Amino acid sequence: MSENNVNAFLLFTCPDKNGIVAKITHFIYETGGNIIDLDEHVNQNQQFFSLRIAWNMSNSTIPASQLHEAFEPIAQAFNAHWRIEFSNQKQRVAIFVSKYDHCLQEILWRYNMSEYDIEIPLIVSNHPDLKPIADAAGIPYHVFPITKETKAEQETKEIALLREHNIDLVVLARYMQVLSSNFIREFKNKIINIHHSFLPGFVGGNPYKQAYERGVKMIGATSHFVTEDLDEGPIIEQDIMRITHKDTIKDLIRKGRDLERIVLARALGYKAEHRIIVDGTRTIVF
Amino acid sequence: MSENNVNAFLLFTCPDKNGIVAKITHFIYETGGNIIDLDEHVNQNQQFFSLRIAWNMSNSTIPASQLHEAFEPIAQAFNAHWRIEFSNQKQRVAIFVSKYDHCLQEILWRYNMSEYDIEIPLIVSNHPDLKPIADAAGIPYHVFPITKETKAEQETKEIALLREHNIDLVVLARYMQVLSSNFIREFKNKIINIHHSFLPGFVGGNPYKQAYERGVKMIGATSHFVTEDLDEGPIIEQDIMRITHKDTIKDLIRKGRDLERIVLARALGYKAEHRIIVDGTRTIVF
Amino acid sequence: MSENNVNAFLLFTCPDKNGIVAKITHFIYETGGNIIDLDEHVNQNQQFFSLRIAWNMSNSTIPASQLHEAFEPIAQAFNAHWRIEFSNQKQRVAIFVSKYDHCLQEILWRYNMSEYDIEIPLIVSNHPDLKPIADAAGIPYHVFPITKETKAEQETKEIALLREHNIDLVVLARYMQVLSSNFIREFKNKIINIHHSFLPGFVGGNPYKQAYERGVKMIGATSHFVTEDLDEGPIIEQDIMRITHKDTIKDLIRKGRDLERIVLARALGYKAEHRIIVDGTRTIVF
Amino acid sequence: MSENNVNAFLLFTCPDKNGIVAKITHFIYETGGNIIDLDEHVNQNQQFFSLRIAWNMSNSTIPASQLHEAFEPIAQAFNAHWRIEFSNQKQRVAIFVSKYDHCLQEILWRYNMSEYDIEIPLIVSNHPDLKPIADAAGIPYHVFPITKETKAEQETKEIALLREHNIDLVVLARYMQVLSSNFIREFKNKIINIHHSFLPGFVGGNPYKQAYERGVKMIGATSHFVTEDLDEGPIIEQDIMRITHKDTIKDLIRKGRDLERIVLARALGYKAEHRIIVDGTRTIVF
Repeated sequence: MSENNVNAFLLFTCPDKNGIVAKITHFIYETGGNIIDLDEHVNQNQQFFSLRIAWNMSNSTIPASQLHEAFEPIAQAFNAHWRIEFSNQKQRVAIFVSKYDHCLQEILWRYNMSEYDIEIPLIVSNHPDLKPIADAAGIPYHVFPITKETKAEQETKEIALLREHNIDLVVLARYMQVLSSNFIREFKNKIINIHHSFLPGFVGGNPYKQAYERGVKMIGATSHFVTEDLDEGPIIEQDIMRITHKDTIKDLIRKGRDLERIVLARALGYKAEHRIIVDGTRTIVF
Repeated sequence: MSENNVNAFLLFTCPDKNGIVAKITHFIYETGGNIIDLDEHVNQNQQFFSLRIAWNMSNSTIPASQLHEAFEPIAQAFNAHWRIEFSNQKQRVAIFVSKYDHCLQEILWRYNMSEYDIEIPLIVSNHPDLKPIADAAGIPYHVFPITKETKAEQETKEIALLREHNIDLVVLARYMQVLSSNFIREFKNKIINIHHSFLPGFVGGNPYKQAYERGVKMIGATSHFVTEDLDEGPIIEQDIMRITHKDTIKDLIRKGRDLERIVLARALGYKAEHRIIVDGTRTIVF
Repeated sequence: MSENNVNAFLLFTCPDKNGIVAKITHFIYETGGNIIDLDEHVNQNQQFFSLRIAWNMSNSTIPASQLHEAFEPIAQAFNAHWRIEFSNQKQRVAIFVSKYDHCLQEILWRYNMSEYDIEIPLIVSNHPDLKPIADAAGIPYHVFPITKETKAEQETKEIALLREHNIDLVVLARYMQVLSSNFIREFKNKIINIHHSFLPGFVGGNPYKQAYERGVKMIGATSHFVTEDLDEGPIIEQDIMRITHKDTIKDLIRKGRDLERIVLARALGYKAEHRIIVDGTRTIVF
Repeated sequence: MSENNVNAFLLFTCPDKNGIVAKITHFIYETGGNIIDLDEHVNQNQQFFSLRIAWNMSNSTIPASQLHEAFEPIAQAFNAHWRIEFSNQKQRVAIFVSKYDHCLQEILWRYNMSEYDIEIPLIVSNHPDLKPIADAAGIPYHVFPITKETKAEQETKEIALLREHNIDLVVLARYMQVLSSNFIREFKNKIINIHHSFLPGFVGGNPYKQAYERGVKMIGATSHFVTEDLDEGPIIEQDIMRITHKDTIKDLIRKGRDLERIVLARALGYKAEHRIIVDGTRTIVF
């Protein structure tokens, strides 16, 4: 996509006030942008304003590279949290896996179908098992075996690798290691996980076993940003599936794979389309 | 709600052009409005712009009664279809029923719970059967028995009654009469029906019997605006429910009632919240 | 329904063994029963056999009143938990409510539509508010105001009332009092509750507020048998509904009402159709 | 799985009569079978009996090879349609594809995960495009280019190939050719198709375009047996997905892929588990 056909995406939150949309859309109009999609909402209890705008810059009077600087004064006037993304600057995504392949396969299949406007420059794992899949996709596969003793050291290498490749987003596609606080702080709001339960139910290990024993009538999966509190990060997407007394734990694991795949795939899609704002312990998904 | 706390709702479509949102939101800002919710989209294939804005007029510098006139020039500049509605001018809704009570009961229950910001000044029927329900709700119930011979005459009386009560919307809550073209033209895009199938499947009579015989694995219900082509009007809302080979036609009818209730109730809710634009054979539901 | 057209329902569990179905269905055949529906399953991990059979007794060679005694030896041979119910002995259901009417209205509406083959001889409440609804339905409404001081005494009266009316099932239709252990033991596996969350998430008070604060993307409702551990009883039915960041707590409460109604209504339907077996902390719903 | 641990599956329909289950389950008991799962239903309007039983033959007193003959008299006594399948005789499935890979990939992924207890000895296509996928899976890929002139001749070769490989089931995984009546008659009730709409809505070509133009609020997919009437065969499975006015036809195609994959995968799963009986224009899926 040439710069002539670039789309820009503004994600913007601030305390509510009159005239915010007018000011912002006037700026876009003035700089030659053509708005494609705009979704705005004010949480009236909290007087909290949130906005996503996508606009086309084909006839823009300023280059993308100067947009941030030009917009800065407006953002400051409203005391906003904000970011602008561009369709020709693809997010660089690292996939972390262990031994289960279903989430990885799903992401790679969609990636090949060009469903995601992202780059996947590398796959990281603590096991060699899924290397053939990475090879078939032509994506470098880096193995960092983790033991209690080597964890800190290996994570340091992983962080260096991610930095070196300018990674914007880490996707834990059934990665069976708890990341250290250090790692999480390095990539704050930049790590997406898939947990195989309908959170906040069944945090921690063996959620399908927990679900079976509690006797729920539906199982779920939850994709969320990773924070230092395990399974407590802001939720991006969830879905569920009906089960019956005829389903064994093994059946739940099998059926749950379909949920995990689809929920993680959707969450990644929202991120790829610049639809997500983290708002404290919650997310806004436009 | 005093005029001091009125919300305004703009629904607006036009050929796409730069600067539409900027112009409109500037107008709202200038007149002292505070935007609560804004959803805009451009259908890029058709270069078709659509927009819904809700804003609060507590600090408005012009009275609601002058808003149309003040906004007119902007709408004309963009060659728009548009309307502005106000939260303190409740839509006046007439419910049409025959003998089935489930959709009527559902609407009245939600009406009593204040889920809908509407008035229901009257209920019309071709049968006396549901009068007790109307009586219990304290809503006048008008019976117009219909035969082939009396239809035209009775409809004329119905139209007069609706006009007299300034009815904005007619809801056919399982009303078992086909309205004449004349009636439909009088209330263009102002009549909502519930059809007990997932349209366009199973148009016409006995859709549950048709569904049973075709052996579908899910039944559905569809709420749509009524046009002169039976079951062909713009669709507002649909939903489905899973069935199995153990379900008889009688089971489909029983289960389908839940679908009909919920789908019609949602469609009415969207209308009550000024969320619907009719766009040719389709609807935009913000 | 005359005895000539009675259906019988057997619910049966035992350790698995060869020949159980053969033995039971032979018994039914021998006594002139015609099987309408049979669903059987063996949990192979636990070697646990469960079965529901519905059969018609029009041509039965023994009267319904002697069926239990006749079947007893088979049940003993397999060391089974079992019960036989009859379609002409309607379950007698007491509805408990407080101030919210939606679940009560839903149940009464279905009761009037004859969706449930049950009797509702009385409604119990700790508040007088919903008496008009009971009156309209022609069902006696008993008020037992509850304070910390009077709770034990009032529950004793309630239990006496339920005993007097031969109540088989208590439905807590948003009854806002925690029942004492004493009450619960008196009606073991005979009290159904609706909890307004997707259990095990958000136990206890204000689940919609909890859901809002946790930022889940779907809310749920759960109907379960009441045990002495609050919100921990065997789950009968659950369902969920998608929400977005635009929904306030008030919206969740409003939307959740639809879930509560439908989930409780379904659970009661399963009970009315003799479809539920309690198996430890879980239920089997055929 | 050794013969010592074989499961047998009986699928059985007949006019209803007393004692059918007793007779059949007695036969299983007598021959040393242990029933794992039994689901039976009588359609009371049509007095039509249908049954699926799965039982374990570990302690069977007769070999699997003699089971048909031994059971025959019972089936004749009830004038039944029936078949018995065995878990160690895997169904042999041929996948037919054209250029879209998503359904094929989904099936192969589940096949590799051992979700299906089947054999896929070959893939057939009218285009060479998907050969690399077949190669990666180690499954022979046969190309039969089809033109109006060569169709009859090529289908003859295809049928010969399928016969040669003892194919039990043909899965049209977005195969973009209409099969001739001759082909369909050769594999009566043995060809499964995926149609990208919620049938009976939008039969024929371009269903997503049709769906877009009709303005439905949900798209669907349907898996059905192929009969000589296009898109009219007995339905096995359906599902739907919500869409909005923001979705273009291209979006519907993209989103619909997920539906097509999952619906076809489920239908194949039901077939693999011997759960489907074709009953005229409908299916019974246990």
